Amino acid sequence: MTTLVSVPYDELKVGDTATYTRTLTERDLILFATVSGDHNPIHIDEEFASTTQFNERIAHGMWTGSLISAALAMKLPGPGGIYRGQELKFLRPVKVGDELTVQLEVLEKNERTKAAVVATNVVNQDGKFVVKGKASIMPNQERTEIESGKLPEVSIASMT
Amino acid sequence: MTTLVSVPYDELKVGDTATYTRTLTERDLILFATVSGDHNPIHIDEEFASTTQFNERIAHGMWTGSLISAALAMKLPGPGGIYRGQELKFLRPVKVGDELTVQLEVLEKNERTKAAVVATNVVNQDGKFVVKGKASIMPNQERTEIESGKLPEVSIASMT
Repeated sequence: MTTLVSVPYDELKVGDTATYTRTLTERDLILFATVSGDHNPIHIDEEFASTTQFNERIAHGMWTGSLISAALAMKLPGPGGIYRGQELKFLRPVKVGDELTVQLEVLEKNERTKAAVVATNVVNQDGKFVVKGKASIMPNQERTEIESGKLPEVSIASMT
Repeated sequence: MTTLVSVPYDELKVGDTATYTRTLTERDLILFATVSGDHNPIHIDEEFASTTQFNERIAHGMWTGSLISAALAMKLPGPGGIYRGQELKFLRPVKVGDELTVQLEVLEKNERTKAAVVATNVVNQDGKFVVKGKASIMPNQERTEIESGKLPEVSIASMT
């Protein structure tokens, strides 16, 4: 278990940064297709994907979006924040084995609404942007520390 | 298996609509936490969630985003489209048992870029908006029909 620590609005500073890194696996393709219902074969059928312009399976764009959401919830500003909005531009495909790093940076604070605008860019292992975007988030008003939730094991049956 | 049919750019009309409905399950909370790495207990720890303003576990906002992406990829404009961007405003929490309907409507076509802007709003079973937003998507240039991918069974171990 990990302890998640919130950065409350008053302590958050423009220029604060955080990162979150994750590598795409075949398992992620199957789980994301299952949980979203998006069974487009470009994401889950190796043979079909090999006939497309991408030559192989690619991640659902919103999987990369889900990493941004994870970074905001777990790192900056952390737990207790209210996610108000997200803009995403999808720039490059993501393939199995690609290592993505979400780069967060606080761009603005709004004293009236107590919300912050956070740059949410994602680069791959070659330093190329796969997503650029911004989030609007209302951080927790107080500093809190909570344990991350415990997850049961998830298993995927063999396809044969 | 389902046959996915693309609506090519030339056949797409401003005002075209499609919907996609899905009900949030406990299983979705666990799978989305697993695939995104967002283990914030508000989504997966019933006891912790009962102490929050929401009184119970809520969906990851980006799970609702993933339904929008599924609707675009499977319904309108369908397979072969290139997802260029997405704006999301998160308006209401989503709880286990909530039935969400993604409502797509083509708002604009750009003859130069061959991209379309699609309204991507999501309502719950009470007809209240949980997400409002817009997508930018470049539809397939040709009409194609493909079979949806086949997924292996995903199982979740008991927590006890």
